Amino acid sequence: MLDVRFPTSRELDGSDAMNPDPDYSAAYVVLHTDGGPDGYGLTFTIGRGNDVQAAAIEALGGHVIGREVPEDAAALAGLSARLVGDSQLRWLGPEKGVAHMAVGAVVNAVWDLAARRADRPLWRFMAEMRPEEIAGLVDYRYLSDALTEQDALDILRAAEPGRGARTAELLDRGYRAYTTSPGWLGYSDEKLVRLAKQALADGFDMIKLKVGGRVEDDVRRLRIARETVGPDVRIAVDANQRWDVDAAVAWMKELAPYDPYWIEEPTSPDDVLGHAAIAKALAPIKVATGEHVQNRVVFKQLLQAGGLSVLQLDACRVGGVNENVAILLLAAKSGVPVCPHAGGVGLCEMVRHLAMFDFVAVSGSAEGRAIEWVDHLHEHFTDPAVVRDGHYLAPAAPGFSARMHDATLRRFRFPDGPEWTEGTGEGQ
Amino acid sequence: MLDVRFPTSRELDGSDAMNPDPDYSAAYVVLHTDGGPDGYGLTFTIGRGNDVQAAAIEALGGHVIGREVPEDAAALAGLSARLVGDSQLRWLGPEKGVAHMAVGAVVNAVWDLAARRADRPLWRFMAEMRPEEIAGLVDYRYLSDALTEQDALDILRAAEPGRGARTAELLDRGYRAYTTSPGWLGYSDEKLVRLAKQALADGFDMIKLKVGGRVEDDVRRLRIARETVGPDVRIAVDANQRWDVDAAVAWMKELAPYDPYWIEEPTSPDDVLGHAAIAKALAPIKVATGEHVQNRVVFKQLLQAGGLSVLQLDACRVGGVNENVAILLLAAKSGVPVCPHAGGVGLCEMVRHLAMFDFVAVSGSAEGRAIEWVDHLHEHFTDPAVVRDGHYLAPAAPGFSARMHDATLRRFRFPDGPEWTEGTGEGQ
Repeated sequence: MLDVRFPTSRELDGSDAMNPDPDYSAAYVVLHTDGGPDGYGLTFTIGRGNDVQAAAIEALGGHVIGREVPEDAAALAGLSARLVGDSQLRWLGPEKGVAHMAVGAVVNAVWDLAARRADRPLWRFMAEMRPEEIAGLVDYRYLSDALTEQDALDILRAAEPGRGARTAELLDRGYRAYTTSPGWLGYSDEKLVRLAKQALADGFDMIKLKVGGRVEDDVRRLRIARETVGPDVRIAVDANQRWDVDAAVAWMKELAPYDPYWIEEPTSPDDVLGHAAIAKALAPIKVATGEHVQNRVVFKQLLQAGGLSVLQLDACRVGGVNENVAILLLAAKSGVPVCPHAGGVGLCEMVRHLAMFDFVAVSGSAEGRAIEWVDHLHEHFTDPAVVRDGHYLAPAAPGFSARMHDATLRRFRFPDGPEWTEGTGEGQ
Repeated sequence: MLDVRFPTSRELDGSDAMNPDPDYSAAYVVLHTDGGPDGYGLTFTIGRGNDVQAAAIEALGGHVIGREVPEDAAALAGLSARLVGDSQLRWLGPEKGVAHMAVGAVVNAVWDLAARRADRPLWRFMAEMRPEEIAGLVDYRYLSDALTEQDALDILRAAEPGRGARTAELLDRGYRAYTTSPGWLGYSDEKLVRLAKQALADGFDMIKLKVGGRVEDDVRRLRIARETVGPDVRIAVDANQRWDVDAAVAWMKELAPYDPYWIEEPTSPDDVLGHAAIAKALAPIKVATGEHVQNRVVFKQLLQAGGLSVLQLDACRVGGVNENVAILLLAAKSGVPVCPHAGGVGLCEMVRHLAMFDFVAVSGSAEGRAIEWVDHLHEHFTDPAVVRDGHYLAPAAPGFSARMHDATLRRFRFPDGPEWTEGTGEGQ
């Protein structure tokens, strides 16, 4: 367990309407094994509290330390179930927040380890499993009114014939990305224009702007962005939970003339009925959410209620790979596209595996789908995400790509790494 | 900050369908002040992870250590808002789980301190505030589609004329209780009968049984309980989140011949739409939930969707007194009775203040309302809850009653108190 923090608040990269001064951080877990590769996972946080997250991960140690490494689907499902089901720790959620993200970090590290031992990048390790194995990864508790194991098998079997062709397509071209880099609230209009032009030059056909500060500013910024990119490039906007239901509707009606593609996190991620009301009022503008949706039960309801039209899966918010397979299956059954949340620390690295697995073995579709791309902190990872011509390249290295360089861990370890002890850590 | 744990798993008191071996615990916070009384708060947990909860509380220290003590409603609202709004820590929820319960422990300790300084028990300290002050305690963010500040003022002003009479009624008679003591899953039929008879003799007119193990067992236990107490005593049942939606409906139809009053926690506390479906299918059996409902946003939706007919407020699950005022106002606006969750560690002590405040100053009604009573661990508190003739007596000592005896803290401190070091801590 390591507490790793990057002083991002010094530059206001990552600033939005709810999070003015984040220090992007990771509670980082390493599963050491005798003689084989190690496994790596993390929880992304934005600064203080990263130590609390690390403590929660430590509390799960008894489930993995000194145990056999799970290698196949059944063993991976069993370990996930034991971690989620630990009744004393479950009380701290249940299945939400710090305790659940800790489960996710450990589950993801175990999957990383299993994929490394199989010498496969995670997306291929998963996409080569049989439909029965994949369906068996999921905990259907609380889902059976929306998704049964038979539903899952039907979806997975329907996707089976095209797996080879879609794998080849990913290896050839990659998976479409969109970029949030131009859109942070802290940026000047001039920087917005410059970065939006750069996004077009780099091959993106969609960008995203943060909104929710002052409506006049948002109208101006969206107008400038639309003038810069023209009518055919999608512009999503992201309010980071800033509004109540009525305010979300009113605010977005001001922005509607500039054709926003989706409104992301318009209100509390817990407000299923609120999202449904907003989606109904704003159609055809889509509603997107997910980076703070706590678990599969809330995603189930957002889909049941029509509260989202784009599902933003996150690699580290829920209980790890197994729960994300459940979420991908729920989305596939509803016909809702998954556009993963990324950025943060390591999220670009990790979610590309889940999106590519989805494309090959679950939804079988790339229609209306793209992975978020934020171009920072990748240099700290041993298998960094690479985007070329607006597409994530398919990762080839074994594992789930959460591993950081040893030099990064030494330098940014909190509170005793030199980045923090040498007097520049004013972000704290 | 102290990590205090009681080895309750040795006796199976507190065992239910989801929590087979809890060690009832508290992450216990003390706010020391110069020269005045101290303030006490806690988060209730069931064992491992209590240290994680304590770490989360520690992370909030900067908001209170070395600061002025808030004494009036405006200052108490301001501090609550700063704690909930801390953006780096908010990321760990938002407003849910470990991070949010930590806010609740600190907010409750601050209220305890303010009430002690005012030399009033918390319920009277609160019930003597003006409607404008009480309405100003609430964070209306994410609530405005269901409750505005004007709505709150209307409710509070309507209750104002009867405050004196209702206070006198509480001082005279107390507040109705119901008892869960007969109903734990680990108990034999004989013990169930004995404790149910004892409940009647003690003046209770409602008991509660845990269900969700095997349906045949539940049918037998409920039949025995009904035969024991007769047709006029209410019997609630509690599934502790054991079922999916369809299973909840099917199972409860088996129990319906024995006239259960409510079904508590039939499924995931996150499943608003599931609760609504269950409530519709099972009416007139009521649906109750709340002890794991993470915040006011989920309560808002449960009320909007018709997902609950009894709201089980918890003193320590949400963000403390301020958020519980919001929840009481939401319930009052919907006309849904609040029957607080208690038991655990200190919950009986704390929730009685909130229920009595509700009766005097918010709902103004005791109709269909009762506070849960579980008769264990009260001896550890300096101002223990007392139930006489089926009623909680009104607490008279200043504060919020979360303070434990020094001897308890010494003996049960984890891992170094003698209860845990002297070899009997097998519950861990």
